[in-house]
Amino acid sequence: MDSIGIGLAGFGTVGSGVYKNLEANRALLAQRLGAEFEIRRIAVRGLAKPRSVPAPAGLFTTDLGELLTDPEIRVVVELIGGIDAALPFVRDAIRAGKIVITGNKALLAEHGAELFQLARERRTPIFYEAAVAGGIPIIKTVREAFIANRFESIHGILNGTSNYILTRMTDAGLDFADALAEAQSLGYAEADPTLDVNGWDAAHKAIILASLAYGFWVRSEDVYVAGIDRLTRDDVKFAAQLGYVVKLLSTIKADASSAIEVRVCPTLIPKSHVLASVHGVFNAVWLRGDVVGEALFYGRGAGQDPTASSVIADLAETVVALKSPRRCYGFTSHDLYGKLKPSEDAVSQFYLRLLVDDTPGVLAQIAGILGDAGIGISSVIQPESHEPGPLPLVLMIHDATFGRMRAAAAEIAALGCVKAEPTLLPVENFT
Amino acid sequence: MDSIGIGLAGFGTVGSGVYKNLEANRALLAQRLGAEFEIRRIAVRGLAKPRSVPAPAGLFTTDLGELLTDPEIRVVVELIGGIDAALPFVRDAIRAGKIVITGNKALLAEHGAELFQLARERRTPIFYEAAVAGGIPIIKTVREAFIANRFESIHGILNGTSNYILTRMTDAGLDFADALAEAQSLGYAEADPTLDVNGWDAAHKAIILASLAYGFWVRSEDVYVAGIDRLTRDDVKFAAQLGYVVKLLSTIKADASSAIEVRVCPTLIPKSHVLASVHGVFNAVWLRGDVVGEALFYGRGAGQDPTASSVIADLAETVVALKSPRRCYGFTSHDLYGKLKPSEDAVSQFYLRLLVDDTPGVLAQIAGILGDAGIGISSVIQPESHEPGPLPLVLMIHDATFGRMRAAAAEIAALGCVKAEPTLLPVENFT
Repeated sequence: MDSIGIGLAGFGTVGSGVYKNLEANRALLAQRLGAEFEIRRIAVRGLAKPRSVPAPAGLFTTDLGELLTDPEIRVVVELIGGIDAALPFVRDAIRAGKIVITGNKALLAEHGAELFQLARERRTPIFYEAAVAGGIPIIKTVREAFIANRFESIHGILNGTSNYILTRMTDAGLDFADALAEAQSLGYAEADPTLDVNGWDAAHKAIILASLAYGFWVRSEDVYVAGIDRLTRDDVKFAAQLGYVVKLLSTIKADASSAIEVRVCPTLIPKSHVLASVHGVFNAVWLRGDVVGEALFYGRGAGQDPTASSVIADLAETVVALKSPRRCYGFTSHDLYGKLKPSEDAVSQFYLRLLVDDTPGVLAQIAGILGDAGIGISSVIQPESHEPGPLPLVLMIHDATFGRMRAAAAEIAALGCVKAEPTLLPVENFT
Repeated sequence: MDSIGIGLAGFGTVGSGVYKNLEANRALLAQRLGAEFEIRRIAVRGLAKPRSVPAPAGLFTTDLGELLTDPEIRVVVELIGGIDAALPFVRDAIRAGKIVITGNKALLAEHGAELFQLARERRTPIFYEAAVAGGIPIIKTVREAFIANRFESIHGILNGTSNYILTRMTDAGLDFADALAEAQSLGYAEADPTLDVNGWDAAHKAIILASLAYGFWVRSEDVYVAGIDRLTRDDVKFAAQLGYVVKLLSTIKADASSAIEVRVCPTLIPKSHVLASVHGVFNAVWLRGDVVGEALFYGRGAGQDPTASSVIADLAETVVALKSPRRCYGFTSHDLYGKLKPSEDAVSQFYLRLLVDDTPGVLAQIAGILGDAGIGISSVIQPESHEPGPLPLVLMIHDATFGRMRAAAAEIAALGCVKAEPTLLPVENFT
């Protein structure tokens, strides 16, 4: 039986999960694959750290370079995270002819164009199932299972921490801060939750998905990203009154002229849509292909074991990849699409929440600004308030571009009767 | 660019869909794959039949054998359906060294063991994504994406016709016959809907899924199969009162001793479970793996385009498969599992609906039989009836084996106070 030597870079949550599960299901994997994996070296930052998963001391090294000089190591698995150490390591690994498996979404979102170009030149593949949506095999699905399709749209709930917080804000009426604290106490959010709640963790995944689906590399600076950290429980409550739930939604869409929009932000979606039923830390991806129609993929988006499941699936790919040229090296550029729509030009319906003086003429002023901008209002609700002072006012807005809508919202914000920064969220009805 | 010659057997709904979509997305596919497909021959039963999808007349033949003698045809796509013609054709194709792609669930469920053995001997793969759940890539997922996993359970809604009928019985209170007639008028059920409504279409798919997941071939005669054709709208209504919906559920489960149970029958599932939200003609598969945890895959289970999407994905696989030995030939036997649990030994909760005389002592007699059999009752409802004569009586039953429960139900049916054949359905709480 073939034995494939592996170098494992990183032995944190996911790295030790890969080791543990390769051991636990070793016989089954060997039977299914006709090949065995041998972890020959594990690179870590410090040797003294106690390990929750035991592994022979002789495997460990603090020198990443040792994974590249061992000719028996054919595959390196990069699970160190971040960019500073991972980028030069992955570059060197490709140059050394190693197959690279990585779960590093930030690395690929920021440096994928360079790394995949290098991989093509060196004819050595990069696999990255674990980088997007944990245990959900969405990379394989977009790359292989739906290869016959032009993707009309891809909508994802790609950050479990945000989804947990939003679920609790919705179901228990918690404030953002309280829901975040609860998520942290349960281990669903890290001590520094910045990348989770500011939308960038999800955005990195959306950039990778969009680039794979549309065959050109989407630059992170061109993507509109907003997190859930400024959302209030009032927004969640008003959305519910209107028949919606708020999700941190990654939206990837092609328009009729094949321009692609990519954005990640809190978005109102109808309660009846299947994505509205994705609760807690689960992730999901809702796709529309021109051939396959609609499909949904749902599962655990993070965690030691689900992510390890995806890394091991990538390891299984190397058995074939080592024997024969790949049809691609992890990302195929094609020229059917190729341009990103400026985020200001994307069209959406909107939810606009204002805090306004309780005086006559306020709605007329606001409606006047929207009317002058050619923006239609589909409904207005003035939620009940039992407190004195300014009142919330919620407007649902017909299709408008983000650019025009933002300009109008800024103009409204400058009115004397508007007492706080407006909250502007897109509404996605999946039509 | 490589060009791969294809022989297409069958030009009905799916066959013409494959042809149409290969043409429509030809340039995109070529860019993604670095290879092109050339359909060199299309075998049909009669040349005179009008075609909804146009193709050059010179491609057509009525001789299946022509697909096997052309050395430029490397891949044959079997979409003729049924077993009589398909079985000898697929056998001959494998012997001729052709890669086989098939969407024929009955063929694989009944003759998969023989065909995959032959494929292994001849070292030529069989691909069959289109045979199970139409456009949902569940075969690829079980075979590749979740290769690291022992499958704890796989639950599927695998027949869109049945699911449409059940959805209408639930949402509109229709009788089975009326819902079936509606499905037929909408093209969701065939003129002869037997295999759809008697459970065997779903059972063929469950057999293929179970065999792939557990590495031994499940024989159709060992699988308990019941359809929705004896279900009444009262059952659907009583289930709803109890917090359940009725689905034609394919249940595949491994127990602690690695024995596998496979059954397909109308089953009560909690309204809150995600599978309860799979409406109309959609299919879904809910999996539990020991590494990945829970995952759901949802999409269109039939239809020209979704099924063609899966056939074309299999065609894409042949690009690599033609260049290098496969790690398997479409099905990998392994010895981790290997035995099917007799269906009588499977344990479940149950729903038992009786029609009984409205006289004192009836419940005591029924409870006595269950008690003597060691079967516990979790709840009893006597739904209101405004008609004279016998009354419905619904019992929810704690865990019991199918064998013991069926014996008790037969004893109950023989009571003088029981006026009709009992309806016995398993209840799946996914715990």
